[in-house]
This record gives sequence, structure tokens and C-alpha cells, in this order.
Amino acid sequence: MNIKPIHALLTVLLASQISFAQNTPSVVKEDFRPSSVNQPGKQYPQVNSEGRVRTSITAPEANKVQLDIGGVKYDLVKDANGVWTGESAPQDEGFHYYQLNIDGASVPDPGTKYYYGAGRWGSGIEIPAPDQDIYALKDVPHGLVSEVVYFSKITQAWRCCIVYTPAGYETNANVRYPVLYLQHGSFEDETGWSSQGKANLILDNLIADKKAVPMIIVMDNGYAFKPQEGENKKPLLVFEEVMMQEIIPMIDSRFRTIADKRHRAIAGLSMGANQTLRIAMNNLAAFSAYGGFSGTANYPSADEIDPVTFLDGKFAEGKAVNQQLPVFFLSLGTKEPNPFPGSVGAFRKMLDKQGIKYSFYESPGTAHEWQTWRRSLYQFAQLLFK
Amino acid sequence: MNIKPIHALLTVLLASQISFAQNTPSVVKEDFRPSSVNQPGKQYPQVNSEGRVRTSITAPEANKVQLDIGGVKYDLVKDANGVWTGESAPQDEGFHYYQLNIDGASVPDPGTKYYYGAGRWGSGIEIPAPDQDIYALKDVPHGLVSEVVYFSKITQAWRCCIVYTPAGYETNANVRYPVLYLQHGSFEDETGWSSQGKANLILDNLIADKKAVPMIIVMDNGYAFKPQEGENKKPLLVFEEVMMQEIIPMIDSRFRTIADKRHRAIAGLSMGANQTLRIAMNNLAAFSAYGGFSGTANYPSADEIDPVTFLDGKFAEGKAVNQQLPVFFLSLGTKEPNPFPGSVGAFRKMLDKQGIKYSFYESPGTAHEWQTWRRSLYQFAQLLFK
Repeated sequence: MNIKPIHALLTVLLASQISFAQNTPSVVKEDFRPSSVNQPGKQYPQVNSEGRVRTSITAPEANKVQLDIGGVKYDLVKDANGVWTGESAPQDEGFHYYQLNIDGASVPDPGTKYYYGAGRWGSGIEIPAPDQDIYALKDVPHGLVSEVVYFSKITQAWRCCIVYTPAGYETNANVRYPVLYLQHGSFEDETGWSSQGKANLILDNLIADKKAVPMIIVMDNGYAFKPQEGENKKPLLVFEEVMMQEIIPMIDSRFRTIADKRHRAIAGLSMGANQTLRIAMNNLAAFSAYGGFSGTANYPSADEIDPVTFLDGKFAEGKAVNQQLPVFFLSLGTKEPNPFPGSVGAFRKMLDKQGIKYSFYESPGTAHEWQTWRRSLYQFAQLLFK
Repeated sequence: MNIKPIHALLTVLLASQISFAQNTPSVVKEDFRPSSVNQPGKQYPQVNSEGRVRTSITAPEANKVQLDIGGVKYDLVKDANGVWTGESAPQDEGFHYYQLNIDGASVPDPGTKYYYGAGRWGSGIEIPAPDQDIYALKDVPHGLVSEVVYFSKITQAWRCCIVYTPAGYETNANVRYPVLYLQHGSFEDETGWSSQGKANLILDNLIADKKAVPMIIVMDNGYAFKPQEGENKKPLLVFEEVMMQEIIPMIDSRFRTIADKRHRAIAGLSMGANQTLRIAMNNLAAFSAYGGFSGTANYPSADEIDPVTFLDGKFAEGKAVNQQLPVFFLSLGTKEPNPFPGSVGAFRKMLDKQGIKYSFYESPGTAHEWQTWRRSLYQFAQLLFK
């Protein structure tokens, strides 16, 4: 996989979130409540019913404090006690990364829990969404989220894999389960899906409602590099090799999986959608379902795809693809910026042209962000292993 | 349990770390290397062979930036590019919480991973220790660290429990394991022992060396409050009830434990030592081993203890205590500040007077901090279930 477009993608990502930016919010609705992802006991940041984010921090000697969210920096105002407070324009529903800027220093807001995204551990905020019930912590049986540490011979490094096992896994000792391999996006890591992605809660709820079958979900880190010899040799991205030769065999030996194509799915978001599509197409004997959330392997191009040359002709025979991948799922948020609508659109056109069947889900009112991907997982998981 | 001394304890904790503080570090050894707990790719903070911490942050418009560690604030110095850099006096070996102060705002250092301690998610730093091999990530079989989410009827709240299952747990489906219940200190939470405490790695290494038997470790949150009715009713601390009526039954039903006294141990650090001693003594039919790391139930008093009245006379019959708790372990760092040496000392005198046998471990050169507790767990775990 070509990793050059990653920096371009990040720029796009940040720029994409400006949608509602206003420099002078006119009338601000005073119904702010602490964000649901604040640290215990912290009153700020807060969110109001318009989706504005208000934060507050003591910085008596500062000259300028800003709330930096969705690609826009909002000036906070200092009171007589040296406490700076202010709010953003309304944000899209769902989860957003953000930070504070204190006299030019970009730092996490000390009020929130921290999440890995945008290449750093930093602050997150949750804007209530009308469908938040799908990822709510409810009175249903809950699965486990476990950290598996393993040494990768290919990359010569210790790696960490997050594994969701559904409720009942520990006590139903004779039951074996299908597995979904689920990947994060660029500048994120293996923690994203079970933390800000709420993959475990989405599955707990779907399984309790009998909308999805109990399954194991494996979330690993898409940045897997093989050290190269010689002075100017750049490390080689070898995630596919690590997935096929190390992660899957390890999961199949350590967990009670059903270790066959029919019971193995793979999906990812953005960069992860790109990576996992390539892995699925290169290893059709291993996977029977693919999910690409907000990303495709032709990224960032919106040009027409030639199925004879694209991915070494893997899509040249539409009928074969339909047989090999009976579940083929794509998704996009309605507010996603370029190049996503263009490149996903070109990919869909190619699928249509080849007669390849796929499901397409559009997340209403969301951009290239986690609310799109939570909803995508909610839809995709219902199609699996049935 | 009386929770009033918690604030006093925090003050003591912070004050205790000043040991080496110097305002003008004379000659600083220039062998700094990035801290082992930095975020991926981050060059700062760094640590040198003297144990000094150097950090660096861009804050072009700031008036004053400080590194706040061990209860001392060290001024950083700004260069022509607006980058502030500076270092602390030498710190004790092991893990420390710290923060930055930017023009009066206390914020996490954006270079480090974050840990829950001192009542917040904040920065941590790791000073290499001569015995760091005991908690190093080595090429040995590794257990799993899992998050278990459960609803507590007693507190009417969702809670999270961290469970370590030893290597082989998932595949040896017919083997049952003893359990150690292991608690954090004040202003910490259930994440402390498996994160900065490295309990999983300590046990992985001990089990691989056959110095400890494979065991499950359960790490829960010692702050468990029952809502009280009426306007001025403060929530009641009910951790003992939650432990005995909810956590232990849940663990015994969900994991393959050996659910008897002989195969159940309980331990904690500081506030957790105090809590778990009370739980052990009130429930001698449930536990056969106790570990109190840097804390006892007479905290913060250093007065002579009257075994007839202390804890309702639970220590009045020394012979009975020896029979009921064949493993009784206490520990302390040699640099711990008051009131710890005094209160632990008074407690030990009482045990001696009553003829109660116990092991005592002293961590050389460490204060009321995680290096003391990592070493304490390393010692204590070797005594268990044999």
C-alpha cells in the first residue's frame, strides 16, 4: 500500500470539519451540560443542544487561549479570576477530536478523557446524536475487551491487538465464533474502535437484540513496518503480511474461532478501508465479507477505474467477486469532503459496471468522522455470518 | 472506611517527592533519551542517566512555562523559535505523574501517554530502574488484560473491572485458577495496576520464571458509593459490600476461578491497603492472604494500637489471625514520608505484640510511588497459593 497520501488525508480531514464555522456566534443557547466523555468530576467541557462546545480553563497569566475544534480556533474570554471560557460554533453530532491552544502551545484539554487520533493522544468530545442508543451502555449482556500483546517476527516489534469477545464467550466453553477483523484510519491506532468507535457496545446491543450473531472482533494496528537494511532504505509497510501470517494464525490459535473463509470478515475505515480491501482481494480464500467505511483502494483519485488494471485485475471478473465476497459493503457520510465522495463514487461505478453486488450506506449529516463509522459498523455487522 | 484523610494524603504524596529538589541544577549530564512512555514518535520528554526529566514544548506567545514534577516547578527557557525547554532535578527511579504549567494553566505534557492518578488523567514519566527487568516486556508467554463492564445494584452505577488472566487461560479450558484482588490508591482508579503498575508484566515474568503460580488478578475501583436519600445525605462508601456481594460472585461466575478461601488473596496500595485490610479482616472465611503495600488501617495515626479495640478487636487473638491469614505481607519504600513510616510502624508493633507472623519488604530508595508498589507486588505474588 502506498502511504504517501496520509498527510494529504489529514489536511483534508481537518479542513472537512469547518462546515458550520462562525466567527461570532450570535445567540448561544444556555443549556450546556458536561460532555459524556469528561474525566470523573470535571464540569468542562460542556455541550449544548445546538452542538456547541464550551470549555473553561484557569490560565491567569496567559495572553490568548483558544478552543481548536473542527479546524477552527475559537477565542476564549478571560474573567477577573483568570479563568478563560468560550464556545465553538455548532458541531456535527458524534465524536470529535479537539485541543486547546494556550499562548501558542497546542495541548489537550485537562477536562476530557484522551483518545488516539490525528497522530496523538488528545481530547475528545461527544455531541449527543439522535441515534446514540445504538452505542449506549445499556442493561444487556456485555462482552469483554481484551489487550493481546504479541511479538511480530515480520516487523521485529511488540504489537498490541484489541479483541472483543461477545457476552457468553468465557462460559460457553464449547462454542466457537466467527471473527471480524476491523481496522482504524490514518493517524489512529488499535484503540480507536473500542474507545471512540464503541465497537464493543454496538455489538453488545446488536447481539442482545438478535440483529447480529455473536462474533469476535479483532482490532489491530494498521501501521506495521518492516525494518530495511541500508542507510536510505525506508521501512516497508507490511500490514498485509502481518495480518495474514501473524495476526490471524495467533487469533485462531488463542481464541475459539471458526477458522474458515465463511466465518471470517474484514473491514476498515478510511485508510483501513483501503488496506482491508487490498487484503480481502489478495486473499479471497480467507474472507467472505468486506466492509469499506469512508474509503476505497482508489483513494484519492476520482478518475474512472479500469477493472483490468486496477489492483492487478482483481475486479475484472464480476461474477467471481460476487461468489467470493457475498457480503460487500461500502459507506460514506453525507457531509464527507473531497476526495471521499469522488473516489468512493468512482469505485462504486466500477462495481456497478462489473455487475458486482454491494450494500451502500449513507450516514446522514456526518462527515469523515467516527459517527459515520459507528453507524457503518452498526449496519455492516447485521449482514455478517448469516 | 473513613475517607476524610484522602486530601491530607494527596498533600503528603506531593510533598514527599521533593527529596532531590534543587533550584539551579549545576552540571546536567547530556545523555538524555526519550522516555519509554512517550507517545509514538515523540522526542520529548527525555530522561538522563541522573534521572533528570527534560521536556520541550512550542509556546511562542507564552510568558512562563514550567515543568511541574515531584512537587517542584522548574522554569523552562524559551529559544528564538518560541520553543521552551528545561529539566528537573534528578527524580527517584520508577514512574512519576507530572504536568506542565503554561502561564498558570496546568495541562498534560502533549509528549507522553496519559495515566489516571492524582485525581486526573495526566502525564507520566518513567525513570529507568536497576531492577526494571521485573516489569519489562519480555519474550515470555503473555496473559490477557481485559475490561469487564458490569452494573452494580448496590451503587446503582455501571462499573469497570480490569482482569488479568495468565498465559494459557484461554486454551487450557479445563484449568481453574486462584485469584488475587488488587486495589489502587487514593485519587487513582482500576486502570492503575495494569498501566503504570505493570501488574500483568510482573506476573507474566514471574510465572514464566516459575516464581509465581498462574493466577487471575482482578483490579477494580475502590471508590464505590451508595446514593443516600435526603438532601444533606452524603453518598456512603460501600466498596466492601460491592467487593463481597458483587465483584467476587461475578468473577467466580464469569471466570474459571477456584472459588475458595485458600485460592483467594487480597491486597492494595496506600488507601487500597487500608480498604483491603478491613475487607480481609471482616471476611476471613473468604481470603487466605493479605498484602498491604505502603498502607495500613490505622492510617494516618502513629499511635500505639490497642488490639482489643482496633478494628473491633479483629487482631485480639494473634493465633487465630495466623491460622486464618497464613500469608500476611506488608511493605514500605525507604524514602516514604510521614505519616506512612509511623503508621505502618505502629501497625507492625501491634502485630509483633500479638505474635502475628508477617513478611515485611522494604523498597530501597523509593517513596510513596509506583516503583515501591511494583516491587511489592513482585515480592507478594511469589508467596501466594503455594
